[in-house]
Amino acid sequence: MKKLINDPDDVVDEMLDGMVAAYPDRVRRLSDTNVLVREDAPVGGKVGVVSGGGSGHEPTHAGYLGEGMLDGAAAGEVFTSPTADELEEMVAAVDSGEGVLLVVKNYEGDVMNFETAGEMVEMEGTEVAEVVVNDDVAVEDSLYTSGRRGVCGTILVHKAAGAKAAEGADLDEVQRVAQKVVDNVGTMGMALTSCVTPEKGEPTFDLGEDEIELGIGIHGEPGVERTDIMDADAITEELTESVLDDLDLDEGQEVVTIVNGMGGTPQMELFVVNRKLQELLGDHGLETWDAWVGDYMTSLDMAGCSITVCAVDDELQELLGAPADTPALTVR
Amino acid sequence: MKKLINDPDDVVDEMLDGMVAAYPDRVRRLSDTNVLVREDAPVGGKVGVVSGGGSGHEPTHAGYLGEGMLDGAAAGEVFTSPTADELEEMVAAVDSGEGVLLVVKNYEGDVMNFETAGEMVEMEGTEVAEVVVNDDVAVEDSLYTSGRRGVCGTILVHKAAGAKAAEGADLDEVQRVAQKVVDNVGTMGMALTSCVTPEKGEPTFDLGEDEIELGIGIHGEPGVERTDIMDADAITEELTESVLDDLDLDEGQEVVTIVNGMGGTPQMELFVVNRKLQELLGDHGLETWDAWVGDYMTSLDMAGCSITVCAVDDELQELLGAPADTPALTVR
Repeated sequence: MKKLINDPDDVVDEMLDGMVAAYPDRVRRLSDTNVLVREDAPVGGKVGVVSGGGSGHEPTHAGYLGEGMLDGAAAGEVFTSPTADELEEMVAAVDSGEGVLLVVKNYEGDVMNFETAGEMVEMEGTEVAEVVVNDDVAVEDSLYTSGRRGVCGTILVHKAAGAKAAEGADLDEVQRVAQKVVDNVGTMGMALTSCVTPEKGEPTFDLGEDEIELGIGIHGEPGVERTDIMDADAITEELTESVLDDLDLDEGQEVVTIVNGMGGTPQMELFVVNRKLQELLGDHGLETWDAWVGDYMTSLDMAGCSITVCAVDDELQELLGAPADTPALTVR
Repeated sequence: MKKLINDPDDVVDEMLDGMVAAYPDRVRRLSDTNVLVREDAPVGGKVGVVSGGGSGHEPTHAGYLGEGMLDGAAAGEVFTSPTADELEEMVAAVDSGEGVLLVVKNYEGDVMNFETAGEMVEMEGTEVAEVVVNDDVAVEDSLYTSGRRGVCGTILVHKAAGAKAAEGADLDEVQRVAQKVVDNVGTMGMALTSCVTPEKGEPTFDLGEDEIELGIGIHGEPGVERTDIMDADAITEELTESVLDDLDLDEGQEVVTIVNGMGGTPQMELFVVNRKLQELLGDHGLETWDAWVGDYMTSLDMAGCSITVCAVDDELQELLGAPADTPALTVR
């Protein structure tokens, strides 16, 4: 499989340099690490908000660095957790004295390394709090997790927590709104094709020309059900009903939705999915407060999508709609 | 090849409905057409700026509808020009009495249909002006054009013309800045894979596992040179040097760059390309004023990228950096 890369061993390093070269006024790289932080970090008087995880999910997480979202983003190797040492450096670099919220996707390596890093910085006097995002409704436990996986709903956590921190709220309050998103969000994904990692150079699972996978994760792990290819409306219905079953919302509830591309999916197809998604939500008596369509959390070059639904009250609407200025998401 | 679509005949219609469902406060669809306009069109006291072309290039053009960019975007069928009738309806719908700039990518069908539409609206008293974008440095004439093709540089034309119109400038001035971008921009693209159209369901050209195409267009037409796969740095150098040869810039010139994904390319790879691009520009003594990295003008699910360089003086910097609020591009 062909890729626009040089040596696979250098891909994360070169990607991070390419990000800094694109946004030199917005982000900087902590030397000798794979950590990017806001150029102006630590931002005085503000709780820091950080995240991190394996590479291959771009723009997650570094694309969300900036005003109103993240202060730090740690990149591991492809589909591999960042080390505790690098996470520690990141947290220390963004702490202005107000403490730091760690936004962790629920994967065993991420959870363990963030926990270790948190303990290390606490010994140096930095206050930390943590939320673990587990929005994937497809599986109860998975190859890499006990409990549900953290996937695209994480972006809404970044947005809400980042907006609350920008308001000057304290660490408890920032953690509270982040947890509120976690408690109200669900996601399910599907794949038309497997992704191909730079190192391996071939698909991480085999999928026939007429097959799709429902309930995929974001690390090239296969899904929970393989079926014959269906049309976009039927696929959208499968994903949406799975998420709504899990959330169990009342009629009239306002929601934010995300149709997320997995990296190799044309926008044309994402909008076809969004059309059906919004129709289904209407059938359920739900009201879409905001709809996002695009590549927010990808899995390298995988073709497919995920659907995220998050119930939003007045507070979450205000936070999700608040200004943000990051490479991947700008809200005026 | 698998796609997230329903009936291929419905894909453009359903995509447009999906866009309106995503952005109901921002865009609306003219009834019985494939034209989207700003929800608040015509915007009083402002020159209208419109574009259009075949579908399959999303977010081009409808993704750029909104404050500071486009007032109208006409979508043809996949890789097919919009009809003159629909273009006429679009221009009429966005004219507030100040006239309308037509931004046309140089393809024979687009040029002909925009010209016909322009003549039709002029008979009804709408003043129009036109720019034809021809930034592709790969070919002098092509399958679908006499003269060079219009590709990703078009987005910079949308941005500059839209910003000038938002300032309240008259039609001549809006056309002047649009033409200034056209006169200062060059683009060259490459493909790792062909795209697959919904109708045909198979690649529009065959490319071996170890081959790439340099100088591709955005309609699935093959490029000007087929070569063995190279690493990302070598590919970036081929594209960049071709563009710089064409532009022939003086040392110290400030530029805006775009590393544009063709639809199936992970962001990781685009940033790897951007790293090398910025290094090469530095070697040439050029100064990057702004760097864009992402999917701006795609070719369905094609894997590959294009590189755009545009020389920018103070005036273009002000216009390209001015506020914009569209689904695909927001500038604060």
